[in-house]
Parts: sequence; C-alpha cells; structure tokens
Amino acid sequence: MRLSRYFLPVLKETPAEAQIVSHRLMLRAGMIKQMSAGIYAWLPLGFKMLRKIENIVHEEQIRAGHIPVLMPTLQSAELWRESGRYDGYGEEMLRMQDRHGRDMLFSPTAEEMFTDTFRSYVKSYKDLPLTIYQIQWKFRDEIRPRFGVMRGREFLMKDGYNFDLTKEDALHAYNRHLVSYLRTYERMGLQAIPMRAESGPIGGDNTHEFLVLAETGESGVFYDSEITDLKFGDREVDYDNVEQCQGVLEEFTSRYARTDDTHDQAAFEAQVPEERRREARGIEVGQIFYFGTKYSEPMGATVTDAEGNKVPVHMGSHGIGVSRLLGALIEANHDENGIIWPEGVTPFHVGIVNLKQGDAAADGACEDLYKALTAKGLEPLYDDRNERAGGKFATMDLIGLPWRITVGPRGLKNGVVELTSRRTGESEELTPELAVARVAEIYAGH
Amino acid sequence: MRLSRYFLPVLKETPAEAQIVSHRLMLRAGMIKQMSAGIYAWLPLGFKMLRKIENIVHEEQIRAGHIPVLMPTLQSAELWRESGRYDGYGEEMLRMQDRHGRDMLFSPTAEEMFTDTFRSYVKSYKDLPLTIYQIQWKFRDEIRPRFGVMRGREFLMKDGYNFDLTKEDALHAYNRHLVSYLRTYERMGLQAIPMRAESGPIGGDNTHEFLVLAETGESGVFYDSEITDLKFGDREVDYDNVEQCQGVLEEFTSRYARTDDTHDQAAFEAQVPEERRREARGIEVGQIFYFGTKYSEPMGATVTDAEGNKVPVHMGSHGIGVSRLLGALIEANHDENGIIWPEGVTPFHVGIVNLKQGDAAADGACEDLYKALTAKGLEPLYDDRNERAGGKFATMDLIGLPWRITVGPRGLKNGVVELTSRRTGESEELTPELAVARVAEIYAGH
Repeated sequence: MRLSRYFLPVLKETPAEAQIVSHRLMLRAGMIKQMSAGIYAWLPLGFKMLRKIENIVHEEQIRAGHIPVLMPTLQSAELWRESGRYDGYGEEMLRMQDRHGRDMLFSPTAEEMFTDTFRSYVKSYKDLPLTIYQIQWKFRDEIRPRFGVMRGREFLMKDGYNFDLTKEDALHAYNRHLVSYLRTYERMGLQAIPMRAESGPIGGDNTHEFLVLAETGESGVFYDSEITDLKFGDREVDYDNVEQCQGVLEEFTSRYARTDDTHDQAAFEAQVPEERRREARGIEVGQIFYFGTKYSEPMGATVTDAEGNKVPVHMGSHGIGVSRLLGALIEANHDENGIIWPEGVTPFHVGIVNLKQGDAAADGACEDLYKALTAKGLEPLYDDRNERAGGKFATMDLIGLPWRITVGPRGLKNGVVELTSRRTGESEELTPELAVARVAEIYAGH
Repeated sequence: MRLSRYFLPVLKETPAEAQIVSHRLMLRAGMIKQMSAGIYAWLPLGFKMLRKIENIVHEEQIRAGHIPVLMPTLQSAELWRESGRYDGYGEEMLRMQDRHGRDMLFSPTAEEMFTDTFRSYVKSYKDLPLTIYQIQWKFRDEIRPRFGVMRGREFLMKDGYNFDLTKEDALHAYNRHLVSYLRTYERMGLQAIPMRAESGPIGGDNTHEFLVLAETGESGVFYDSEITDLKFGDREVDYDNVEQCQGVLEEFTSRYARTDDTHDQAAFEAQVPEERRREARGIEVGQIFYFGTKYSEPMGATVTDAEGNKVPVHMGSHGIGVSRLLGALIEANHDENGIIWPEGVTPFHVGIVNLKQGDAAADGACEDLYKALTAKGLEPLYDDRNERAGGKFATMDLIGLPWRITVGPRGLKNGVVELTSRRTGESEELTPELAVARVAEIYAGH
C-alpha cells in the first residue's frame, strides 16, 4: 500500500477521553473512531488488524476440528424465554420490538441459538462429538463503557459451543478449547494465563478465564510465578488425543492462578512459596465453560444413545474477545512513541520511508523495494508522501510496524538502505537486495 | 474436510415455506436455518460460501483502489437527524433505545456514518479522491420478508462511498465502481446487467442497478438482446484511467436496459429493433449512485480547494448484496437434483465418494486422493460415511460441488477412479494421479 492512496488519519494530539494507552494509541494511529458511547468504527488500519486477528482465531479453531457458522446478530426473544434467561439477563441486553411488535434482542451471547440449531438437526449420538462456533458482533449495554475496544458495547467475539454425549467427552472438548486458545494467543505474541474463574450468567462449574498481564487490566490476579515460564511452543498436539489435551490442561492449570473473583489468600499462601507469589493486574481475553445440561435440558436438545434412550447433551461454551484482543495486544506491546506489533500479527510487514520524495534515485529505489517485497508475498506500507522525514518516522513509530526500511539519496550513493527494528530501535545498513532477503527471512516463520 | 466430521444437515423433504428454488435448495443443502422471520443462521456450508463471496468482493474492491473499513451495526439516531433522514425513513428502520434512553437504530445503510467519518478527518482537496467501503450486516424491517436470503431482514451488504472534489471526479468513481462490479459478478460466473434505475431513499440522479436474469426475479426487465453478448472478460483495466472506465460504462450501458421502475415502452420500441427486444425477470444484486452533495451539504463534509475555498464534496454510494448473491447464484445455477456451483465460487473444489467404506483398497485410495488434492492447494470434501452409494451421490448433487471423484473396489482393480462433472453429468475413468492432475488443471484459472 502506498500511503498517499491510503486512509490513515493519525492524530497529533492525545484524545482527552482516552484513559488507557491502548485506547489512546488506537485513536491516535487512526485505527478506530468512536461513533457513540462504546461503539466504534474500524478505520482501515484497525479493520485490517481486526481481520488478521479474526483469521488467526479461525485457523486455530479449524485446526482443533471446530466448524465455523454464523448466527444473526438479532434474534427473537422466544428462545431466551425457553432457556429462562430472558427476564433475568438485565439491562445489559439490548431489547427492541420489530414493526409487528415482536420482542427481539441483539445477541449478547448465543447459547440459545446454538442449542436450537443443534436440536433441529442432530438426533443421534453417532453425530457427536460436535463443536460449532462463530465470530460475530455482540452487544452488551454496559452502563459505563470505557477503555475503547476493551469494554465497548458492540464487540466482536468468537463463541464456540460443544455438544457431547457424556460429561467426559464434554470435558475433552473443554480441554481441546484450552489447548487451541493457548496456541491462538501465543501465535499473536501474547501470553494469556488460564485462571480459575466464576461462571456468571453463562452458568456451570468448570470455567477458566485467560488473562494477559497488563498494568491497566481490570482484574486483579494472583499467581505462582512459575506459570509465566510455561510456553506452548511449537509442540504438535493431536486434538483427538484425550490424554494429550488433558496433559496440557494439567500443565497449564495446576499451579495457583486466580482472579480476584475466586482468589483465596489462605490457599495461595499454602500452595505457593512466598518468593513465587505474584499479585498483578490482567486483561481477560477469553473464557471457557463446561455447563453440562443447563441449556440442553430446558430446551430439549437430546440425542438417542447407543441403548436407544433419549438423553440431553453435555455442553460448554468458549469465547475469545476478538476486538478486545487488539486492545490487549497494544497494552502488551508499545512504548512512548506508539504501538509495536509482534511479527505474528501486524497490519503491514514492513514500512518503507522515502527520505526525499521526488529524488529520482530515492523514488526508484523505493519502488524497486516495494515490488521486491510484494513479490516475496510481503505487504509493505510505502510512505510516498511529500513530507519531512521526521513526520514520516513519527507516523511509522506510532502505527508500530515491526520493521522499517529507510531510503535516502545519501545511503543510495553507497548502495545501501537502512533496516530498523521498531522494538529495539537498532538499525543496520544493507544493500536493498539484502534488506528484502532479511525481512523475508524474519517473516518466514510467521 | 471429511464429511463424518463436518456438520452438513441436509434435508430430504422440501420445506413447505420456501417458494423459490434458491430458498428451497439452501434449506435442503443445510446452508441456512431460519431463526425468525427473514433472519437466518448460516450453517457451515452456507457460511463457507458467504465468506468466499465476501472475499471476492473484497479483492475486487481493493483492486479498484477502494479501502475497507467497518462501521458498527448500531448507531445513535443523531447523525440521521442531521441528514434529515431519521423521521422520513419509515418502518423499515429498526429503532430502539439503549439503557440510558438514547435513540438508536440498526444501520439499514451507512451514508451518514461514512460522511461523518470523512468530515472528522479530511480537510483538504489534496487528500482526495477517497473511496472507503465496508462489508457489514444491515437490517431492514421488511413488512413481508420472503424468498430466503433474497429478501431477508438481516442481510450482508457491501456498501462503498466515494468522496471527490468535483462532479467529474465523482462520476469517474461511479464508473470505477461499475467496472469493479462487472468484474466481481463475472468472477462468480454471473452475468449482471447494469440497468437504469430509480434512486429511492438514497437520492441522486445517476444510478444503475445490476440485475441477474432469472425467472424468479422480483423485477421485470426490458432490454436489448445484444447486451447479453457483452463480456467483461479478462481485459486489463487501469482504474485510474478516466477514459478507459468511461468507455466500459458506455459499452455496457448504451443499449436499452431498464427495470419496470424506469421502463419507457415508447423509447424501448424506438431504440431496439423488434427481434432484439426482450422482456424478462431479474434479481437485483447491486446498485451504484452518484448523489452529489446531498449528504455533504447538510452534514458539513467540506474540503478546502486549491483556491482556499471550503466546498462540499461530491459523493456517491455503491452497494452489492453479498448474502443475496448466494440466492442469485443458485437461481442461475441449479437443476432438479440440486445446486451447481460455478468453479469460481464453490464451497469445496471436489467431492470424493467412497463407494465401499471399510474396503481397504477403497479407503486407502480415497485417503491418497484427499492428500494429493490437498497438496495441490485444493479443498476436497470426502464422503467417508458408512452410507449407501445412492445417498452419497444424492448429497453431492444437492450441495453442488462442480466435480466429483468416485472411488470403488471394482474401478480400483483396473487402476481407475471416475471423474464426473456436476454440470454435464459426464464421467471419465482415469488413474487417481490423472484425476488429481485434471482437477488441478480445471481450477488453475480460478
């Protein structure tokens, strides 16, 4: 993309309303625009990132054997009356009537719609196990939306639902989700720690939240410091292998890690030696639940088992806050000049800064770099505007591309351009060909 | 994908409520499920197709230089009061109040949000031209939703908005959209004819609708038969070239082609020789508008021109009915046994039917085919269920994959499998290796 043809409305001033760094930087980098309280437009850079995160979540869910569908945002109130949640859900549910006076609502979560879909088609245990999921916009009418996309009212969420014959099978689905979530977050360069949580309005006994450590997190967290040494890494997991998935769960959840909702100081002190006890703050980026037959019983989602009996299926639901992940990524990856995207998830792979637009040698070298990078399957953002170098550097730092190639007449006389890491600030001079090869090599693993 | 692990709830019976073939086939093929009147869940096969169509629309818009963003589905009523459309829009607009009693609505279209976004950031003619677009769910509370996704209430639409300094520039944007739309539809194997249309609540003088001919179309259409010979083909278009885009517009719109809204029988007879006059029915799959300063003036979307004057920008908006395209594709591509997807847009590239599940040779050959096809970048759907051949063929015909490879013990003894075209029904016997090569060759151009 050439910046002169892009729409990247960066702001010089820090917006007064933004209290946390991710909100400030998303506004300043021209990623989002508030349209009303807690409701955002996703500008080109923000939309591009949202789509990248969405695609990673899709890829990891599909890898785990889960099947994507898409439910409508609006639904009739009937299903929620059937499950018994309509009256109790409270003011966070946005309710409305259509032109015929029928009660409708904007989906805050979708247990009812998925259970209804399941019961409409699946009748036999032979069609189990089944996990279907969606990535769709939800609405929760927060009384005080804040922190930008971290606690917005309209937000993009991945929500998946497993349907299993037995509790045992459903717990394997639970573990499978835990594994796929660990992979998903790590691929984005995030460490998200599974912590024992409370179930709230979804229901159920088994539930873990995934928290990214960040000073601005809304939750207090208490954990054993050994946990942050755990890495999922590039291990191969067979998602059908019950023991293997159970093993990952045990490895990642056996140490003490709880949010303030479930924290037990006595247990913390009993289980964790003092030097390993940590208190910090965290951002919730996902949650998994096993809730058994809470929805399948009242809604009649049953299958015939091998003995011919009709039994309600065992279910769980599993969510990742997709739009919120953008905020969490920035909270975890920034400095005083702006965002620093991890290589695993960046809007563009590399920025090209032309120090002297209009200089034939510099323009030509930039065009050549642009073509060579594109030919390698990389997506560069070329700042071809007629602006001063300082402004160009500031924009690149603000929007946080991990790598920048700087091209100027002086360097070109010596046959070199400059390759700079956004994270370390370190630069090296290279021929343009080597710079392209180097960037391609960096991204080869991503 | 292995069918035993997929969720493909095909129906044997034809659902009584479905009046047109696309609606019937989408229900029968397990693509959609009605959740309430005019509101559908997209089951795995339907979601997969929706995503494929969405991706083609994105690719062609980006090729034309248009920039993707995403607006929220919900918005405050304020912007619509500013443009003067809030009170007049009528009952199709779904209105609601949030917990603080603020008037909100589910976006039926987004001229106001895009104009507001533009005016918030763009101040100078130097930042023009600019076209931004989204693919997002819209809601229009149709009094009598029908025909499945063809006239649903919640629907996925691509809507793009151009912002230009002059009428002349905006008309180039109009032409650019026309060209990109022709490419988009043709890539999906659809012929959509641009027809002079009425502007309705969007406003403006210049507008064309794109119609796909189909007996079940809601619009009557009148056209010169020469039009259906026009092909966009694989011509290279420079979207910056004003004359070239204007030339395409003239080529595709100079002959008589109108919907019943704008039809003029006298003009039809005067302009078209009798033997070329056609009356038919069509499905509207897109519309482009130039409406000048209709929104920029009341909403103050101005830029400073080269002389330093503040002038309102010239705008247009341009839509493609993304979810509706699925219906149109099926109306144009089916037979009595089911859907026939064009190669350009099919959920899976090829089906593999194992005639004797459990037979070691057949199972092994199917697995090998699955791996070989996947290695070529193709996505097969392997029917590995323990079902009779007749049921497997019926399912493959119903869901409409363009090619099927049938594997059975008898053929394998002679070293062959059967490759069958869904469209022609013709089969040829080939070695498995040649079948893979043949399918790869078929899809090489797509």
